Amino acid sequence: MLVHSAYGKSRVRLVQVRRGESRHDLKDLTVAIRFRGHYDESYTDGDNNAVLPTDTMKNTVYALAARDGVDEPEAFGLALARHFMDGNPRLVRVRVDVTEGRWGRIAGAHGDYGDAFVRQGPDTRTAAVQAGRQHTFVGAGISDVMILKSAHSAFEGFLRDEFTTLSGTRDRLLATSLTATWRYRTTEIDFGAAWLAVRHTLLDRFASHQSESVQHTLHAMGQAVLDRIEYVTAIRLVMPNKHHLPVDLSSFGLENRNEIFVATEEPYGLIEATLVR
Amino acid sequence: MLVHSAYGKSRVRLVQVRRGESRHDLKDLTVAIRFRGHYDESYTDGDNNAVLPTDTMKNTVYALAARDGVDEPEAFGLALARHFMDGNPRLVRVRVDVTEGRWGRIAGAHGDYGDAFVRQGPDTRTAAVQAGRQHTFVGAGISDVMILKSAHSAFEGFLRDEFTTLSGTRDRLLATSLTATWRYRTTEIDFGAAWLAVRHTLLDRFASHQSESVQHTLHAMGQAVLDRIEYVTAIRLVMPNKHHLPVDLSSFGLENRNEIFVATEEPYGLIEATLVR
Amino acid sequence: MLVHSAYGKSRVRLVQVRRGESRHDLKDLTVAIRFRGHYDESYTDGDNNAVLPTDTMKNTVYALAARDGVDEPEAFGLALARHFMDGNPRLVRVRVDVTEGRWGRIAGAHGDYGDAFVRQGPDTRTAAVQAGRQHTFVGAGISDVMILKSAHSAFEGFLRDEFTTLSGTRDRLLATSLTATWRYRTTEIDFGAAWLAVRHTLLDRFASHQSESVQHTLHAMGQAVLDRIEYVTAIRLVMPNKHHLPVDLSSFGLENRNEIFVATEEPYGLIEATLVR
Amino acid sequence: MLVHSAYGKSRVRLVQVRRGESRHDLKDLTVAIRFRGHYDESYTDGDNNAVLPTDTMKNTVYALAARDGVDEPEAFGLALARHFMDGNPRLVRVRVDVTEGRWGRIAGAHGDYGDAFVRQGPDTRTAAVQAGRQHTFVGAGISDVMILKSAHSAFEGFLRDEFTTLSGTRDRLLATSLTATWRYRTTEIDFGAAWLAVRHTLLDRFASHQSESVQHTLHAMGQAVLDRIEYVTAIRLVMPNKHHLPVDLSSFGLENRNEIFVATEEPYGLIEATLVR
Repeated sequence: MLVHSAYGKSRVRLVQVRRGESRHDLKDLTVAIRFRGHYDESYTDGDNNAVLPTDTMKNTVYALAARDGVDEPEAFGLALARHFMDGNPRLVRVRVDVTEGRWGRIAGAHGDYGDAFVRQGPDTRTAAVQAGRQHTFVGAGISDVMILKSAHSAFEGFLRDEFTTLSGTRDRLLATSLTATWRYRTTEIDFGAAWLAVRHTLLDRFASHQSESVQHTLHAMGQAVLDRIEYVTAIRLVMPNKHHLPVDLSSFGLENRNEIFVATEEPYGLIEATLVR
Repeated sequence: MLVHSAYGKSRVRLVQVRRGESRHDLKDLTVAIRFRGHYDESYTDGDNNAVLPTDTMKNTVYALAARDGVDEPEAFGLALARHFMDGNPRLVRVRVDVTEGRWGRIAGAHGDYGDAFVRQGPDTRTAAVQAGRQHTFVGAGISDVMILKSAHSAFEGFLRDEFTTLSGTRDRLLATSLTATWRYRTTEIDFGAAWLAVRHTLLDRFASHQSESVQHTLHAMGQAVLDRIEYVTAIRLVMPNKHHLPVDLSSFGLENRNEIFVATEEPYGLIEATLVR
Repeated sequence: MLVHSAYGKSRVRLVQVRRGESRHDLKDLTVAIRFRGHYDESYTDGDNNAVLPTDTMKNTVYALAARDGVDEPEAFGLALARHFMDGNPRLVRVRVDVTEGRWGRIAGAHGDYGDAFVRQGPDTRTAAVQAGRQHTFVGAGISDVMILKSAHSAFEGFLRDEFTTLSGTRDRLLATSLTATWRYRTTEIDFGAAWLAVRHTLLDRFASHQSESVQHTLHAMGQAVLDRIEYVTAIRLVMPNKHHLPVDLSSFGLENRNEIFVATEEPYGLIEATLVR
Repeated sequence: MLVHSAYGKSRVRLVQVRRGESRHDLKDLTVAIRFRGHYDESYTDGDNNAVLPTDTMKNTVYALAARDGVDEPEAFGLALARHFMDGNPRLVRVRVDVTEGRWGRIAGAHGDYGDAFVRQGPDTRTAAVQAGRQHTFVGAGISDVMILKSAHSAFEGFLRDEFTTLSGTRDRLLATSLTATWRYRTTEIDFGAAWLAVRHTLLDRFASHQSESVQHTLHAMGQAVLDRIEYVTAIRLVMPNKHHLPVDLSSFGLENRNEIFVATEEPYGLIEATLVR
C-alpha cells in the first residue's frame, strides 16, 4: 500500500537581470517544487495521464519569471504555487522552496557600479511556500550563518554518568552554523524587510545572551524573534555545536589563557527546537 | 512556547578492528544520537541539571564498542538506544542513526589479505533505531546507490499545459541515486543477510522493470521488497531523476542513434514514496 | 629512482582569541606545511631518523601561536617557515599555506559587539610562504570570489571550425569564481592593507572593464594590480567561466530580452594566466 | 608581461551507450581540455581571432564520440588531442584529462542484466594525454582509493624537537586515500589491462608491505609498479595519512587493546613522491 508520495523538480537555477536606465538589479534563485496529490496510478500502473512532467515545472519557473518578473523569493514562490494549484486538479498540496544567493554591488572610486556584482555569504536566504486547497503558508529562513561568541558562554551543572568526562566551564567559545526557518502570519508584508529584521534579531540575541548552553541561547534567539517581530508565528532553529577545544600547551612549557583553540568539524552537537506563539 | 526540541551528537566516527588469529575484521561506523524528552528547562532557564552532555554520548559510543564489541550496525544502535533509555529518566524517545562504510579485503596472489582493506562504494549501509518507553523500531537503509538502465524505460502520455515542451519517449536512459530506508518487523533477524537481500531485490527489480516513469519503477522496487522479504513492514524510496539528455548532433552532420548523452546534475526530478504492508 | 618527494601536514585548524579590555580579536586560520629536502632514506629504507613527524608540525602551529601570537597570516607563515628551516638541517625548502576565514563583528543597537562574530564570505584570504636556504618568497591570495557583470561583456570574432555552433554576442553575462595568488617584493609591508588593496583593484577592474572575453578581462585585472600596487611582482589568476545561458522562451510566446538566464555548473570554461612585472 | 596562460573546458560530461544485440556497454566520462599556445593577443587586446571557443571544445567531445565511438579513455584522449593539434596552428600543447566513472552490471537470478548498471567506486579511473608538436605523452591514474591496513605498520625512531609529543609505535592503523598517476612508454598497449595491473599492484604492495612510515610504503608501492609493469616509465603517488587514533578508555575502567579508534578527517599528513625508471 502506497501511503505517501511526492514528486517534483529540484535545483532549478534562475538568474534574472532587471535592466534599469543607470543600474541593473540581479536576482539569483534556486527553486524546488514538490507536488503531493492523487497520483497513485502513476506509481501503481505507470499511468502518466495526470502527471505534469517535472520538465514543465522547470519551464514554468522561467516562464513566470519572464512574464511577471521576480522580486521577493516569497512572492515568486506564491505565484508558482498558485499557478500549479490552478492548473492541476489532482494536486492536493504543493511546496515551493526558494534559495536566494545574495549579491552586493562592486564598489568603485565614485560609488557602486550599476552592473557588476559580488556574492555575499556564506549564508543564504530561503523562502518556503506550502499551498493547499484551503490554506497557504508562507515562510522564510536563513541557512548556514556561521556565528561565534568568545564570551558569556558557559556549560556546567549537567548530568553526569559513568561515561562523563567533560568538565564544566564558565567560559568557552560557542560557535554554530545557524539555520532557521519561520512562518509568517500573512502574505501582506514586506518580505525583504522582514527577513532582515529576523536576521538582525537572531544575531543580536546570540551576541547579547548570557549563555548557559546552546539550548539556552537557541531558545533566547527564537523568543526574541517572536517577541520583537509580531508577524512571525513560529520559528524553528537548528544549531550544530561546532566545538572549539582549548589546546593543551603544558608539554611545551606554555600556558593557554583560553586563547588558542582547535576548531573541529566532527563530531558535533546538534541542537534544535521549534517555538510558536 | 517550545513545541518541539531535540539534542544530540552527530558524526561520531568509530573504527573497530577485531584481531583474529589469522585475520582481522573491520567495522567503520558513523553514529548520530538524538534525544527527545522533558528537557524544556534547559532551553527556557539554562538549567542543565537533567542534560546528559553530548560529549558523554560520544564517549558512550566508544565505551560500549570497547566493552561489548560491534557486529551489525542495527544491533549496536539497539544497544546504544537501550543504554540511554535506561540511564535517562527524562528521555522519552531516542534515535540512533548508524552509517556503515563498507570495506572489502585486498586480494593477493594467494587469496585475500587478512589485515588489509579497500573501501567499497559509493553506496553506504545505514541503520536507524527509534526507541521509546513502549516501542522500539529498527530499520535499515542504503544511500547513494547510483543505478542506470539503458533500456525498458519510457515516459509518455503525460499531462501537457502551456509550458510543456517535453516530447514523450519509449526509450530513454533512466538513472538515479537511490536512497531507501525500511523498517523491520522484529529485532530477531540476521541484519546483515537482510540488508543484502533488500539491496539485491531493489537492484534486481530496477533492472527487470518495464518502466513507464520513475514513479512506476520506484513503486515496483518497493513492492518487490515487501513481496519477497516478509520481515520488512514498510519501505521508503527516494529517487532523484538524474537526467541524461541525448546530444543533438545534427549540425555536425552526425546522427545520434540514442547513444551519446550528456549527464546532468541540475535540475533534477525528485520522486519519493513510502509503501507499507 | 625517487625524483621528487614532499611531506607535511594539512588542515591544521587554529582559532586565536585575543582578549582585550573591551573587545576581543578573532583569527581563524587553516595551515598546511610542506617539507622538501634530503629525506630519501625515509622513503627507500624506512629510516625515520631525520623525519620530523607531521604531528610535531601541527603542535608547532599551536605553540608558536601561543608563544608569539598571530597577526597577519603572511607573518605567521614566515615565522613557521623560519622555525622549521632553523631546526631541520635536511630541509631544503618549506612551504606554508595559510587560509584565513574572515569574520566580522555582529552589530547591535549601540554599535558592534566586542565578543561576537559572524563569518564573512564566501571568499577566503590566503597566504603562501616559500622559504629556501637562500631566498624566501611571500605571497597572498584570494579564493572563490564570485563576481558577475551584466553589461560590457562580449565574445565574438572567434575561430570557427566544423564543430562550432556558438553565436557571437556583444552582450552576455560574465560570471566567475575568481581565485588569484600574487607575490610580494618584500616582507616589509602591511599585509592586511596590501590584501585589501589587491582585492579592491581586482574587483574594480573586473567591473569597469569593456570585456571582449574572459581572457581579456583576466589580463586587465592582473595588469591593474601590477600597475597600481608596486610591491606586487607577479600575479596569477584563475577564472572559470560560469556560463549563464539565456532561456529560450519563444515556445511560450514570451520574449527573453536578455533578462532570464539559467546558471550552469558544468561544463565550464577555465581561463588562467600569470603576469609578471 | 604575460608569462603563462592556458584556457579550456572542464567537466564535459559524456555518457555513451553501445547497443549490442543482447547487451549494452556503458562509458561514463568527464573530460577536461586545456590549450596552451600563441594566444597572447586574446589576453592583451581582446582579439579572439585565433581563439577556438571552449563551447566548440565541448561539442568536439560529443562529435568525436558519436563519429568514432569511445573505448578506452586514454585512446579517446589521444583522439581529441590529435584533432585539436591538427586544427589549431597556434596551439603548442594540449592536455586532455579524462575521468571514468566505473559501472558494473546489475546481477539477476540468471546472470547479469545486459542493460542495467550499478556504479562502482568510490575510486575513479583517470587518463591524461599531453600532446605537443614533437611528443605526446599518455598516462593514466586512479583517484580516491581508500585503503587501510591494520597490521605491519609502524612509525618510530623519528626526529624529536621541543614540540614533539608523539610516541613511536610498532602497531598502528595506516589508512589513506590513494591517488596515483603514471605515464606509459608507448600508446600501443591495452590500456584497460594496464590500468587493472597497476591498480592491483598498488593495492597488493600496500597490503604486503612491512611499513615503517607512509613514505616507506608509498615508495614500495611505486617501486613495485616500476618493477612489475615494464611499460610504466614514471609514477607519482599522493597519500594523505588519514589518522586513526586509539581511544583512551581508561577513565571508564576499560582497556583498549588497539581495537577502538576514532577516524579523523583533519588535520592529515600529506605524503607524495614521484619515481621514474
